[in-house]
Amino acid sequence: MIHSQAPSGMPTHKYLPFQDQIRVELPDRTWPDAVMTKAPRWCAVDLRDGNQALIDPMDSERKLTMFRLLVKMGYKEIEVGFPSASQTDYDFCRMLIEGGHIPDDVTIQVLTQCRDELVERTFDAIAGSRQAIVHFYNSTSVLQRRVVFGTDEDGIVDIALQGARLCKKLEETIPDTDVYYEYSPESYTGTELEFAVRVCNEVIDVIDPTPDHKMIINLPATVEMATPNVYADSIEWMIRHLDRRESVVVSLHPHNDRGEGVAAAELGYLAGADRIEGCLFGNGERTGNVDLVTLGMNLFSQGIDPQVDLSQMDEIRRTVEHCNQLPVHPRHPWGGDLVYTAFSGSHQDAIKKGFDDMERRAKAAGTDTDGIDWGVPYLPIDPHDIGRSYEAVVRVNSQSGKGGMAYLLKTDRGMELPRRLQVEFSQVIQRKTDTEGGEVSGAELWRIFSDEYLHSEESEIRWGRLAPVRSTISGSEDGLDQIEAVLTDGGTEITVHGRGNGPIDAFTDALGTIGVDVRVLDYHEHALSAGGDARAAAYVECAVGDRVLWGVGLHESIVKASLRAILSAVNRAERDTV
Amino acid sequence: MIHSQAPSGMPTHKYLPFQDQIRVELPDRTWPDAVMTKAPRWCAVDLRDGNQALIDPMDSERKLTMFRLLVKMGYKEIEVGFPSASQTDYDFCRMLIEGGHIPDDVTIQVLTQCRDELVERTFDAIAGSRQAIVHFYNSTSVLQRRVVFGTDEDGIVDIALQGARLCKKLEETIPDTDVYYEYSPESYTGTELEFAVRVCNEVIDVIDPTPDHKMIINLPATVEMATPNVYADSIEWMIRHLDRRESVVVSLHPHNDRGEGVAAAELGYLAGADRIEGCLFGNGERTGNVDLVTLGMNLFSQGIDPQVDLSQMDEIRRTVEHCNQLPVHPRHPWGGDLVYTAFSGSHQDAIKKGFDDMERRAKAAGTDTDGIDWGVPYLPIDPHDIGRSYEAVVRVNSQSGKGGMAYLLKTDRGMELPRRLQVEFSQVIQRKTDTEGGEVSGAELWRIFSDEYLHSEESEIRWGRLAPVRSTISGSEDGLDQIEAVLTDGGTEITVHGRGNGPIDAFTDALGTIGVDVRVLDYHEHALSAGGDARAAAYVECAVGDRVLWGVGLHESIVKASLRAILSAVNRAERDTV
Repeated sequence: MIHSQAPSGMPTHKYLPFQDQIRVELPDRTWPDAVMTKAPRWCAVDLRDGNQALIDPMDSERKLTMFRLLVKMGYKEIEVGFPSASQTDYDFCRMLIEGGHIPDDVTIQVLTQCRDELVERTFDAIAGSRQAIVHFYNSTSVLQRRVVFGTDEDGIVDIALQGARLCKKLEETIPDTDVYYEYSPESYTGTELEFAVRVCNEVIDVIDPTPDHKMIINLPATVEMATPNVYADSIEWMIRHLDRRESVVVSLHPHNDRGEGVAAAELGYLAGADRIEGCLFGNGERTGNVDLVTLGMNLFSQGIDPQVDLSQMDEIRRTVEHCNQLPVHPRHPWGGDLVYTAFSGSHQDAIKKGFDDMERRAKAAGTDTDGIDWGVPYLPIDPHDIGRSYEAVVRVNSQSGKGGMAYLLKTDRGMELPRRLQVEFSQVIQRKTDTEGGEVSGAELWRIFSDEYLHSEESEIRWGRLAPVRSTISGSEDGLDQIEAVLTDGGTEITVHGRGNGPIDAFTDALGTIGVDVRVLDYHEHALSAGGDARAAAYVECAVGDRVLWGVGLHESIVKASLRAILSAVNRAERDTV
Repeated sequence: MIHSQAPSGMPTHKYLPFQDQIRVELPDRTWPDAVMTKAPRWCAVDLRDGNQALIDPMDSERKLTMFRLLVKMGYKEIEVGFPSASQTDYDFCRMLIEGGHIPDDVTIQVLTQCRDELVERTFDAIAGSRQAIVHFYNSTSVLQRRVVFGTDEDGIVDIALQGARLCKKLEETIPDTDVYYEYSPESYTGTELEFAVRVCNEVIDVIDPTPDHKMIINLPATVEMATPNVYADSIEWMIRHLDRRESVVVSLHPHNDRGEGVAAAELGYLAGADRIEGCLFGNGERTGNVDLVTLGMNLFSQGIDPQVDLSQMDEIRRTVEHCNQLPVHPRHPWGGDLVYTAFSGSHQDAIKKGFDDMERRAKAAGTDTDGIDWGVPYLPIDPHDIGRSYEAVVRVNSQSGKGGMAYLLKTDRGMELPRRLQVEFSQVIQRKTDTEGGEVSGAELWRIFSDEYLHSEESEIRWGRLAPVRSTISGSEDGLDQIEAVLTDGGTEITVHGRGNGPIDAFTDALGTIGVDVRVLDYHEHALSAGGDARAAAYVECAVGDRVLWGVGLHESIVKASLRAILSAVNRAERDTV
C-alpha cells in the first residue's frame, strides 16, 4: 500500500489559493466554542435570488404560490423581487401590495443596485406597503473593482453612499411605508475585510439606524471561495469592527460553490451573525443559495425550534418543485426521497431494534414514543415529524439482510419470523436479488414468501407433493392424541392415521406411514394482528430426512396452521431435491 | 420590522442537542489556523457504501464499469464490496482478482463485520490478490451499544479485538497477499471520544502496525450529528490520543445528514487526518457519503492538484449516473448542469467583462488565457478545465439583461451590438420573456433578433413597408454621392434618387422623396468573423419622425448592409405605429 497517487495533469497553475487572495486572520476567534440555542432571523430569497437562476423563471401564478408557501411556513422576511430590473418583478410586487396578500407581520424585501433610476423605481414598487426592506448593493471585491467597475476603493464607496443617500431622500416620498434598509457589499468573500468594513460603516453612517430601527448589513458569500471556518472567522472579524453594532442586524448570505453553504451559514451564525438569507432546498444561481430547509431541520434535530414549520416536508417539496421546475434530489438532506431509507441489512437490523427499544421505553414511561427522547440508529430524526411514514424506512434489495425483510413482514403482514427462519428466508431473497437485481417491494416480498412457504393454488412454485384436505383429532385414554388426516398426495386423495403427544407429534407419526421422515425441532406460533386478520401463524423448524428447514402455515385454527407448517417444510424439502 | 418569528409547533422536545450527548472539548484546537497544501489519500467506496444504498444495486457489468472509472480517474484505494455479506460482492471480488482487472498500484479494500464466519469468508474473497485492505468494523456508539448489542464497553472492545486477532491469524493462510488493515469504530460520531480512542488503541495493539506497514484508523461520521467544526475538534483530539501515530493512517468517512459532509471532511483534514473515504457525487446511504468530486474540485480551485483526474467531468457524471441509476442534480457543485451558468443580467455582464479582461491580460503577457491566473466574476474556475464549453455559461431568460444576449450574439454569430442597441434589444427580449416566460436559447435569440431587425422573407413579423431590390451609387463632381435605389414599397417596385455626403446620406435623402423622414444618429459596422461568414454587419441608430431606434443590415457589401440597416429602422418605426 505504497501511497501511489499521481499528479492529475489538471491545470492547477491557473488558480491562487484563497489565502493568497484575501487575508482573514483571527487567531483569537471564539466561534468554535459557541453552540446554537435559538433560530436566527430567516429571510427567504426564493422569489429573487432563487428565481433569477431558474431555466424557467416563475410566472405570477408560481410566484404567488411560492409567496404563500413561505408565509404559511412562517417566514417573516421575504425578498419578493428586483422590481427595477424586471417588469414581472415590479408587477408582482404591486400585486402583492394592492391585492392585500402581505400579512401584517410579514415584511417584503426588494433588491436594487445603487443606481439612481433603479432606486427610484424600487421606491415606486413598494409604495403602499405597510413596511418594506430596501436591499441595495454594489460589488466590492478586488476582482469586480478591477474588471467590472474599473474604479478604486473610493469610487466603490461613492457608489454605495450615493445609493444610501438617495434611499433616505426617497423614503420621504412614501411616508405611509415603514422603510428599513439592507446593504450588501456584494462579492464580500472576494473583498479585503478592511475595505468591506469601511464601506459598511460609511453606509451605516448615512442610513443612521437606531436600536429601535435597525438596518441590516448582509455579508454574502456571492461565490463560496474558501472553507467555512474562514467565512466564520471573517464574520467574527467584521462584527468586531462594525460600528453601532446595537443598531445593526448582521446577515449571512452563503452560496454553495464548494458544497459548504450550510456549514458556512452555521459557522457564521456561531460567529455572531443574527440573520440568514437562503432558499428552500438551496435553489439559486449556479450551485444555489444556502438551503433554508436543511438549516431549519438541522436546528430541529438538535431540539431547537426552527420557528418555521417543516412538518409537511413532502408538500413543501412538491410546491417548491412546481415553482422552480427543478427536482429535489433523492439524497437531499431531510427532504429527499431516500434520506430515511435503509437498504443495508445491518442498518435495517439496528433500526428494527431501535424501534423496539423506543416502544419498550415508552411503555415503561407510560407514554407513547412521541413522549420520549428519540433514539434509533441511522435515523437522526423520527420521519413522522416531517410527515413521512415508516414504510419507506426499510427497503429491501440484494444488499439487505434479514433485518429488513423481517421488519417489512412484521409491519406489513404482522408476521413475526423466528430468527433462524429470517436467516433462511433472507437466503431465498438474496438468491433472487443476486440473480435479478433491483429492489424488492413489500408486496413482492410477500409474494415471494407466500410462494416459498404458504399453501396456495396460485403459487408460482408448485406447492408440492402433499396438500391438506381435512383432519380430525381426538384425545385418547392413554394420553396420546390420534389424528385422521385427509391429504392429497401428488393429486390423489389419501387418508393417514397417527398418534402422538399432541397433534403435531401425531401428524408427523401419520406422515411416517407414507414414508415421510419428518421431526419437529422448533416451533413458534402467534395470532396475526395485522389488518384484523383472525388467523394464526405457525412456524416449524423440521428435520426432513437429513435436511433442516422451516415451514409456515396460516389458518384460523392454530392446530391446522401447525399441520400446514409441517406440510410446508416437507414439500419444500421434496421440491428442492427435484 | 419587529422580529415576529413564532414557534413552529414541531416536537423539538424529542431531540437532545449534540453537546448533551457527546462531549467534545478542545479549546486549544489548532486546525482553524491550518491551510491545505496537498491532496489527502483518497479511498473510493462507491462499490460498497454507495452500492448498498441504491434502489437498484449494481450488477457485475455496472460494478466493473464503476471500478474502471475509478481506476482511470486515479483512485488507488478502492473498496470493492462486502464479500461475506453478498454473493454478488464475493463474485465481483473474485472476478477482479482472477480476471486481472486490478492494476499493480491499486489496492482493493473489502469490508467486514467482526464476526468469525464473515472474517473467514472475507479472506477467501481476497486470496490471490497482490495486496488488499481488510476493513473490519463494529459499532461503538452509546446508542448502538445499548439498543443493538446490549453490551458494555468491554463487550464492544472484545468484539473488535476478536475480529483483529482472527484477521492476524487468517493472514497467514494467504501468504501471497500483502494484507493491510483498516479498523472503523462505526457510528464514531455517537461514541464518547475516550471510548473511541480506547477501542482504536487496543485494536492497534493487536494489529501491531509499523511505519513501513501502517494500519488505517477510520473515524466515520456514520450519522452526521453536529456542525463540522465539532467533527474537526474530535479528529484533532483523537490524533492527540491515538497510539503509534507514525504507524497509523487516520481516515475520515463523513456522511451528509446535515448537508455538511464536505465541510466535515475538509475541516477534519485540516485537523490532521491523512485520508478521506467517499463516493463520486456523494452517493451513499440516506443523504450519501461525502462527495469525492466536490472535494477534489475544491482542492483544484485552490491551485492544489487533487491527484485524481476530474477534467472529463461530464463523462464521469454520465458513468456514475449509469452505474448508480440516480441522477446528479443540476446544482450539484462542480458537476451539475447549471453550475457554470448565469441567467442574471448583472452576472452576465460581469462575466463578459471578465472574459474580455482575461483576453487583454493574456495578450499583454504574450500568452493565451490558460497561461494567466483565472479571474472571472461568478465563475470560480474556468469551465474549460472540466471539459465544458463556454456556451452554457450565459443563458438568457426574463431575469437576464443585455449582457447575456450580447454575449450570445457575439459568441454564436459574431455580432457585436453597440451598447444602446443592446439595451433596445434586451427590451424586445424582455417583453417576450415577461409574456411567455422560459429560457431563450441561443438559436431562439437569433430568430428573435433576425425577426426584429433583419431583412427576411421568412420573418414572422412582416419585414415592413420597404424592401431593397438593387441600388447604384456614383460619385459626382461636387463631391456628393448620388444614389439610384430600386425598392419595393408595400409590394410595388419604385425607384428613388438622392444625393448626399456618402451613400448613407444619399439614401436618406432619397427616402425623403417618398415622405420618409429619417436621420442617422450613430453608425457601427464590422466584418463578421463567425463561421467564415464573409458578410459585414451594419448597425444604424436613426431618428425616424420623432422616434429613435436601431436598424441592422447584413450583406457582403458593407454599403448594402448599411442601406438595409436604414430600411430596418424605418420599417420597425412604421411597424410599431400600426
